Amino acid sequence: MTATPDAAPPAAEHPQHTQLQKLMAEALGTFVLVVLGVGAAALPALGLGASGSELAALSTTSIGLAFGIAIVAMVYAFGRVSGGHFNPAVSVGAAIGGRISWREAGLYSAAQVGGAIVGGIVLLLVALSADVGYEFGDDNLGANGFGDRGGAALIAVLLVEIVLTFVFLTVIFATTDERNDHPGLAPLAIGLTLAAIHFVAIPLDGTSVNPARSLSTVFFSGGDAIVQIWVFILAPLVGAALAGLAYPAIFGHATGPVPGSGFTFGSGGAPVGYTDQYQQQWSQGGQAGAYGGYDQPAQGGYQQGYQQPGQPGGYQAPGQAAQQPPAEQPIIQDGWQWDPQSQQWIPAQQQPGQGGDSTQVRPQDY
Amino acid sequence: MTATPDAAPPAAEHPQHTQLQKLMAEALGTFVLVVLGVGAAALPALGLGASGSELAALSTTSIGLAFGIAIVAMVYAFGRVSGGHFNPAVSVGAAIGGRISWREAGLYSAAQVGGAIVGGIVLLLVALSADVGYEFGDDNLGANGFGDRGGAALIAVLLVEIVLTFVFLTVIFATTDERNDHPGLAPLAIGLTLAAIHFVAIPLDGTSVNPARSLSTVFFSGGDAIVQIWVFILAPLVGAALAGLAYPAIFGHATGPVPGSGFTFGSGGAPVGYTDQYQQQWSQGGQAGAYGGYDQPAQGGYQQGYQQPGQPGGYQAPGQAAQQPPAEQPIIQDGWQWDPQSQQWIPAQQQPGQGGDSTQVRPQDY
Amino acid sequence: MTATPDAAPPAAEHPQHTQLQKLMAEALGTFVLVVLGVGAAALPALGLGASGSELAALSTTSIGLAFGIAIVAMVYAFGRVSGGHFNPAVSVGAAIGGRISWREAGLYSAAQVGGAIVGGIVLLLVALSADVGYEFGDDNLGANGFGDRGGAALIAVLLVEIVLTFVFLTVIFATTDERNDHPGLAPLAIGLTLAAIHFVAIPLDGTSVNPARSLSTVFFSGGDAIVQIWVFILAPLVGAALAGLAYPAIFGHATGPVPGSGFTFGSGGAPVGYTDQYQQQWSQGGQAGAYGGYDQPAQGGYQQGYQQPGQPGGYQAPGQAAQQPPAEQPIIQDGWQWDPQSQQWIPAQQQPGQGGDSTQVRPQDY
Amino acid sequence: MTATPDAAPPAAEHPQHTQLQKLMAEALGTFVLVVLGVGAAALPALGLGASGSELAALSTTSIGLAFGIAIVAMVYAFGRVSGGHFNPAVSVGAAIGGRISWREAGLYSAAQVGGAIVGGIVLLLVALSADVGYEFGDDNLGANGFGDRGGAALIAVLLVEIVLTFVFLTVIFATTDERNDHPGLAPLAIGLTLAAIHFVAIPLDGTSVNPARSLSTVFFSGGDAIVQIWVFILAPLVGAALAGLAYPAIFGHATGPVPGSGFTFGSGGAPVGYTDQYQQQWSQGGQAGAYGGYDQPAQGGYQQGYQQPGQPGGYQAPGQAAQQPPAEQPIIQDGWQWDPQSQQWIPAQQQPGQGGDSTQVRPQDY
Repeated sequence: MTATPDAAPPAAEHPQHTQLQKLMAEALGTFVLVVLGVGAAALPALGLGASGSELAALSTTSIGLAFGIAIVAMVYAFGRVSGGHFNPAVSVGAAIGGRISWREAGLYSAAQVGGAIVGGIVLLLVALSADVGYEFGDDNLGANGFGDRGGAALIAVLLVEIVLTFVFLTVIFATTDERNDHPGLAPLAIGLTLAAIHFVAIPLDGTSVNPARSLSTVFFSGGDAIVQIWVFILAPLVGAALAGLAYPAIFGHATGPVPGSGFTFGSGGAPVGYTDQYQQQWSQGGQAGAYGGYDQPAQGGYQQGYQQPGQPGGYQAPGQAAQQPPAEQPIIQDGWQWDPQSQQWIPAQQQPGQGGDSTQVRPQDY
Repeated sequence: MTATPDAAPPAAEHPQHTQLQKLMAEALGTFVLVVLGVGAAALPALGLGASGSELAALSTTSIGLAFGIAIVAMVYAFGRVSGGHFNPAVSVGAAIGGRISWREAGLYSAAQVGGAIVGGIVLLLVALSADVGYEFGDDNLGANGFGDRGGAALIAVLLVEIVLTFVFLTVIFATTDERNDHPGLAPLAIGLTLAAIHFVAIPLDGTSVNPARSLSTVFFSGGDAIVQIWVFILAPLVGAALAGLAYPAIFGHATGPVPGSGFTFGSGGAPVGYTDQYQQQWSQGGQAGAYGGYDQPAQGGYQQGYQQPGQPGGYQAPGQAAQQPPAEQPIIQDGWQWDPQSQQWIPAQQQPGQGGDSTQVRPQDY
Repeated sequence: MTATPDAAPPAAEHPQHTQLQKLMAEALGTFVLVVLGVGAAALPALGLGASGSELAALSTTSIGLAFGIAIVAMVYAFGRVSGGHFNPAVSVGAAIGGRISWREAGLYSAAQVGGAIVGGIVLLLVALSADVGYEFGDDNLGANGFGDRGGAALIAVLLVEIVLTFVFLTVIFATTDERNDHPGLAPLAIGLTLAAIHFVAIPLDGTSVNPARSLSTVFFSGGDAIVQIWVFILAPLVGAALAGLAYPAIFGHATGPVPGSGFTFGSGGAPVGYTDQYQQQWSQGGQAGAYGGYDQPAQGGYQQGYQQPGQPGGYQAPGQAAQQPPAEQPIIQDGWQWDPQSQQWIPAQQQPGQGGDSTQVRPQDY
Repeated sequence: MTATPDAAPPAAEHPQHTQLQKLMAEALGTFVLVVLGVGAAALPALGLGASGSELAALSTTSIGLAFGIAIVAMVYAFGRVSGGHFNPAVSVGAAIGGRISWREAGLYSAAQVGGAIVGGIVLLLVALSADVGYEFGDDNLGANGFGDRGGAALIAVLLVEIVLTFVFLTVIFATTDERNDHPGLAPLAIGLTLAAIHFVAIPLDGTSVNPARSLSTVFFSGGDAIVQIWVFILAPLVGAALAGLAYPAIFGHATGPVPGSGFTFGSGGAPVGYTDQYQQQWSQGGQAGAYGGYDQPAQGGYQQGYQQPGQPGGYQAPGQAAQQPPAEQPIIQDGWQWDPQSQQWIPAQQQPGQGGDSTQVRPQDY
């Protein structure tokens, strides 16, 4: 990157996916999550008769792996397009953590729920036509539940869902942190974590940590399931919010938050159309962001550009003095300021509002 | 690549495997898939006596993982040779999606079925000699089935096989998309997806999503298995076709389709011998294509060459003006046109037929 | 790296995490290990009633995978921050093996036990509120045990824990060895190894190999568990010490030991503040150390710099004579000397104490 | 590599491990394979009482994964040292396939069997002290068996072991082929394949495919086990030999065979001391060979050097005419000749015996 001061404009470097493609990716990915994950939970249980506790134990491994593998596959498949959330709790946590805008989090969540319900309808059609005894409105089709519907009591389920979603989001935040060394293995770590989360909570409530998953078949699993659905929407969102607050508070930011994220609603100075340029993927770095290629450890780019000049490919053409970053001038964006000492974004110590200009020196653009 | 305009001809850059080696790789890989996958389904069941529903649940995890691991191993082993299909539905989906020619899809499918049947014969010999009660013509040797043969009813099985093959092919299309960031992990994602697919459908029909797998032991599993085999050939092909149509429609192409693929049968202008040059692997990029090395994110090569000049290894020798692509002249091939704005192949807006010449500027060749 | 003799100072190249961030990472990671691993062992067992031997066998796979996946995820998440120990036995083994200082090993262990106990309290709250029959002070909440508490007898448990911790640490030492080719997959190998260790020892004692894990719920598992806890503190530490001695004795060091590690307590010559500079991660190589990026095989850097000049990125600018290492002058640090013939660190054959100066030629700093 | 005609001699580029370190790595790795794999098969079965068929099915997944994970971990740990065989069948197959010398295969096998028996003794001590009913000379301690000892009959076991070892070796040959794109994931594919192999054959004979594994506890498993041991030595070696012959016959060689391998015993011309230089790892490419770093796709090096000059790091210094390979002069070594057209080693069409000289142009040395 350093070798071409006259590079093509950033817009060309990071070919943007259309908003429709992103939403299609989120919907399709959540559809697959439901078909494989909820499918592995619901369909074999139908085929095997009642879901006694022993049979539940028999299937815990395969059900948990099905959910986890679906996320592994979908993030490798569509991470480059949409960032690979497939879960409203992830999108909301990402917005709180400053990685996507609230507007995008809302659109993503709608697409996820839509894809999940289409997946749930497919499972319903299979269950109805399979002739294995499923009764609409009577039997459970893989919906979450607690108390009378089996498993643990309400308080335990609330606690478990909050804690496990916090764990899930923390793994996502940390493995997709742009300062991380090997983002290419993040999808594997994230998906496997979801599998382990299911190993803990399947016998307690079927495991949600994902409101879209819980909504997918709730309408095909009897009235009691609908009455309980609020738990599996509320608790994951609370856990995600906690992680979205805790992770940057402890470990700092690799980059500044995107406009319209966090708690900086309506952050003024960003011009119209500006948001689109920033509707980037999960970890917010354009194509190389969410799960960047192995060759581009998605770390703070431009600092690296001159501090580690001998890295692979980092050939330093002679006479590149022009690329020395203007270190005297603090880099501020949306209320966050880049601290060269600690290599982190810290709360801005000067007046915010220069977000638009600071894009000139944001790491990703170099 | 940009540094040597006088590079050796493409044929030398991408050492082609012989057609025989490709077909041997497909046959051998499908043989291994049958020995490990169908073997894990059939042989332990024989050893344990009748395959009751509880024993089926016991073995779901190991059977599904055996199928998935076989694909992981075989794609890492032979992806560089043949692209690593091992499944007629994959080959047909790839042809519909524009990644291999129909002629090659046919040859691949024949090799796959041949390898599968050899694998089935090995399993038959083991079952006959194992002295565990297997009766030829009476017992099931890992063949798929539905209805009277156990599992779900016909309509459900058709639906499940179509949807799951659609999911499988979508994962393959997306993870091997040349615009993807980390093709080297695609084999893992693809194989694990096949495992999760089995976790869903083993209790319903044994899981096919692969006509070659279903044909492997159908002749050793009793007459009823043969009567039902059409379902496990038809449904996977339908699911694959849907994915082959949907994926590029939603997410576009990284490269133009190969001649003789998709629905452009007999696309005229390609000279004789030309097809051979294009009989490339799965994601159609020569050696670095299907599951390219980590260092070579198999993305659109030459556009990248000047847009991302500072990437690893992308040293830009001074004075390379000759390499600037002739951007004024649209790149058209086989009815598809490269759109530099959207970085995708779109239906050509000029007359097709320049396919032969356009190879000069196809990304892979640079 | 070779291309810039006037590179920024090492402190800037390797942005240090604060001590607090490191300890938070260790505490948080061990918290997650307990919630997922001990959670998968304790909570489903409560939900399913008594933990009979058959149910234990049913759950061995999912419990072992939960522990293993937790480590996979946490090392990918926080390996760059703290090195990713999450286990006092690992920290002590690393100190004996010369990779971290004893002072840091102590702080890490304290943070790990703290995080583990917070995780144990979360599990306690879930178990108390779940209404599945857990009785405080009576029932086992995932604590390790032997003899009367089920499983094997004391001697067998001591032996198993020592041997399995030795295996675990050997895998960690070898896969994070800076001479290894692909450190980026080390977290996967390490975590999976922990899963396999559980497959062996769950029926014997529940599997510890980690004093923090064993302490997490010991106070919520009845008085007998507390009486037995010494075994699960002592045995893992013994196994770790054996590995910390054996691995470098057999395979040598990639780098010299850090000051204050091994058995060189109070190694004098290091100036105050010097230790901080070396409080680096697990495999002791700054950011690229523990689980370095794929592009930077974390091998002995500067020797490589001139011996393998054509490696990726190793562009050799003309006229770099100044970078030829002063091979005539032996490289000595903290009692270890670099042997260019065998490419290893061997016990110093000259007087130690030049540790401070030798940082000039330590591989990582070039 | 191309940039330094005056590079250090090859011996310095590829720091050799001592023969003792290699044998220690093989012994230690096989020890771990036995402790984890045979341990997961033998110890839980003791803890749970008799190994009924249902309990066997319960544990198939965890036992198979324990074996597979042990290989994943050990190859990532010690692949760079010894190549990571841990199995006499693998070493013999490698010798037949031309990758290591017969002398080294013999030494490796001895080390493997030694390490395995030490592992078996550890398991014996645990079983004796565990107080779970194990009777020396009476009970089975994870040894393989057939016929009267449970499982399938002799012929089926011979067939299964031959076929599965053939599959295992084929995966090893193909994924470590130097022409492969991502050798860094080969250990994962190889280890997972071993897991799937166990999923097939555990109910039939316990699964060997590795004489060292079968020898590890055979003396602690009763007299009948000793009588049957020949099967689990012979059949894996036959399967390995078939793969060692078939793979290069179908897919060619990436490099010429090492002296003293294959069927060219006593290949004369090699000078004394020459063999040592070639005692390289598994896939025979020095450090980058067996499971090379991601940055160095271990492909035919020097051809690549000028055909793909723009690859990562492959900066082409101006004026390197001296590096053009002497293409007119055929490259012959030990009866194999490099065919530039097919990019493979083919049987020499001229007189052999120029092996010593041809090292000048062997791919690895550039």
